[in-house]
Amino acid sequence: STEVKECENYFSMTLLDRRSDKRTDSNWLSKKQSHPATVYILFSNLSPLVTLGMGTERSQPPEVKLCRLYHKDVEQYMSQTEEVTLIFLGVELQFNKNFMAAGNEKVLEEEEDDGLVAWFALSIDPTSAEKFKEKHEDCYFLHPPMPALLQLTEKEAGVVAQARSVLAWHSRYRFCPTCGSATKIEEGGYKKTCLKEGCPSLQGVHNTSYPRVDPVVIMQVIHPDGNHCLLGRQKRFPPGMFTCLAGFVEPGETIEDAVRREVEEEAGVKVGHVQYVSCQPWPMPSSLMIGCLAVAVSTEIRVDKNEIEDARWFTREQVVEVLIKGNQRSFFVPPSQAIAHQLIKHWIGMNANL
Amino acid sequence: STEVKECENYFSMTLLDRRSDKRTDSNWLSKKQSHPATVYILFSNLSPLVTLGMGTERSQPPEVKLCRLYHKDVEQYMSQTEEVTLIFLGVELQFNKNFMAAGNEKVLEEEEDDGLVAWFALSIDPTSAEKFKEKHEDCYFLHPPMPALLQLTEKEAGVVAQARSVLAWHSRYRFCPTCGSATKIEEGGYKKTCLKEGCPSLQGVHNTSYPRVDPVVIMQVIHPDGNHCLLGRQKRFPPGMFTCLAGFVEPGETIEDAVRREVEEEAGVKVGHVQYVSCQPWPMPSSLMIGCLAVAVSTEIRVDKNEIEDARWFTREQVVEVLIKGNQRSFFVPPSQAIAHQLIKHWIGMNANL
Ligand SMILES: Nc1ncnc2c1ncn2[C@@H]1O[C@H](COP(=O)(O)O)[C@@H](O)[C@H]1O
Ligand SMILES: Nc1ncnc2c1ncn2[C@@H]1O[C@H](COP(=O)(O)O)[C@@H](O)[C@H]1O
Repeated sequence: STEVKECENYFSMTLLDRRSDKRTDSNWLSKKQSHPATVYILFSNLSPLVTLGMGTERSQPPEVKLCRLYHKDVEQYMSQTEEVTLIFLGVELQFNKNFMAAGNEKVLEEEEDDGLVAWFALSIDPTSAEKFKEKHEDCYFLHPPMPALLQLTEKEAGVVAQARSVLAWHSRYRFCPTCGSATKIEEGGYKKTCLKEGCPSLQGVHNTSYPRVDPVVIMQVIHPDGNHCLLGRQKRFPPGMFTCLAGFVEPGETIEDAVRREVEEEAGVKVGHVQYVSCQPWPMPSSLMIGCLAVAVSTEIRVDKNEIEDARWFTREQVVEVLIKGNQRSFFVPPSQAIAHQLIKHWIGMNANL
Repeated sequence: STEVKECENYFSMTLLDRRSDKRTDSNWLSKKQSHPATVYILFSNLSPLVTLGMGTERSQPPEVKLCRLYHKDVEQYMSQTEEVTLIFLGVELQFNKNFMAAGNEKVLEEEEDDGLVAWFALSIDPTSAEKFKEKHEDCYFLHPPMPALLQLTEKEAGVVAQARSVLAWHSRYRFCPTCGSATKIEEGGYKKTCLKEGCPSLQGVHNTSYPRVDPVVIMQVIHPDGNHCLLGRQKRFPPGMFTCLAGFVEPGETIEDAVRREVEEEAGVKVGHVQYVSCQPWPMPSSLMIGCLAVAVSTEIRVDKNEIEDARWFTREQVVEVLIKGNQRSFFVPPSQAIAHQLIKHWIGMNANL
């Protein structure tokens, strides 16, 4: 089950310690911005810049890797226009630092250098993005984000999840929702402050100033007989794909109640016991997928055609065929990086123990 | 443990079925608005209108109850000004309906009446609120919200949590964050749409149009010896109050990672295993408190004075004294309606079983 655990962490495993204490240290941030060891990852239109690395064996497909850039590579695009956004992502985790301390003493000897390797995400405008690509022919922006993002390694996916969520917030939340005025970005990209004197958003602490994270429940619904699970599909899915039901948690609702409401709304099935399994950030644009097992107490399916196209009970055997044996003739489920895949697999594992 | 379960549901137990399918049925909504059986609850400045009911015994303190109003009571305040907001909360749960069907046949016989009792929350401007209070002397607006909201019964607290969260969203998110233009309220209060033609928020589905729910982790941190727990206090707390550490989940972060980050940031303590226990909506303004047990793997406390004022390991005996025996000489914890109280109690129960 180590394998399951690791896969569940796609989009959350990270190379970085966020070091939120540094977000308000503008002196430190500006020093790190121009430090030669600092790593930049580049975005255009919420897509990260990547390159192809070679697979370790010839037969393997080439790996998609984030382009790690330095200050000298991005300097010219960092003018303070509205379309350029800079986010402080964190510093490389300690073991990386120690490794560096041994191998790269020259950097550490510099006056006042704490040896921390900072990472920033930089979002540039489309024209600059074009110019950049002309100069760096082996790089490209991963687009459309899904399923392309799933080609990254887990650790890089984690960094991209963090960066993309915050950038998506800035791109959609340019104006103060309380008064409609322009805003300025602060605290390394983690805060937006209204520029209009006297705006009520400036009195006290308000969530208008902080990035949005949307909690979503996603649930593996188990038939009362324990041997079937409920999977559904939306019209926009590739043909043949079925997955766990999901929906946004509403204001004033618990996770468990949201699971019950969504399953009843979408499929007409009543749920009793709900149990949290695991969660996963999903940067489309900034969701937190909260994965649960849900035990149905009714079995008749009534699909709400406004929400989904189809929902069916699948037998354990059918799911094992598709998930373990890779037989995809009848239907298929999302890839292993998605929490839905892990929830389904978790259920198969549980059943095996019965 | 039924008692624990019930208390955990403060702010989420509800009288209502949300019936989100009706939010887009403007015909149904407008019929229900003027239906004589429809219940209105009134808010001013995010405070609900309440009245005092008599406790069942003379010695008991009077109960705080939501004022349930009818269309005739509120009609005159429902003009379509910017400061008046109407939210469809749902319909009374089925068993109430059946009860009504038996007792109140006249209503059901009316043409096209489905017998559902709809609830709305109505937020009025301060001048109207004053006028209303003059007419209804036994009613008042609960303010400040905390700890006053905790005087409501669980079921009414659930309705208020839903209503207050959505109203708080409307009061802070009046303008389109994407373009700064005015917005209009739709779908029974659950959607805001930008009024400017061509705004990018109108293409596709964006979270700018939907109410915000902020996931927060709150954790009972257990000492590696299993017999102490870590509680902290903020400067703004009443003197002597200690509670579980808590913090907002950041973009691109799992619940478990948020627990580890917050405990390390606030108290300098490292956490290993994290386990979800239960959750609670917290309408201040619209949080989802996700309660976890967290096992510490280090013990030295280094308090970040920017975030909290103090944090200490408390022994199991100390906590039992305060929680069960009600001995509050040394310190005290939040009341039973708060999830922190339930997490602490849950831990005591767990320890008792060891
Ligand atoms: N959605 C949010 N709403 C309010 N504060 C937030 C949010 N996200 C992060 N924060 C930070 O959390 C602090 C308040 O935390 P608390 O003391 O728990 O209310 C604020 O000063 C912000 O720095
Ligand atoms: N925060 C949110 N972001 C996007 N859609 C939301 C949100 N909250 C509720 N919704 C609703 O969920 C629907 C999209 O759900 P989905 O198909 O899961 O992407 C939208 O059409 C909205 O009605």
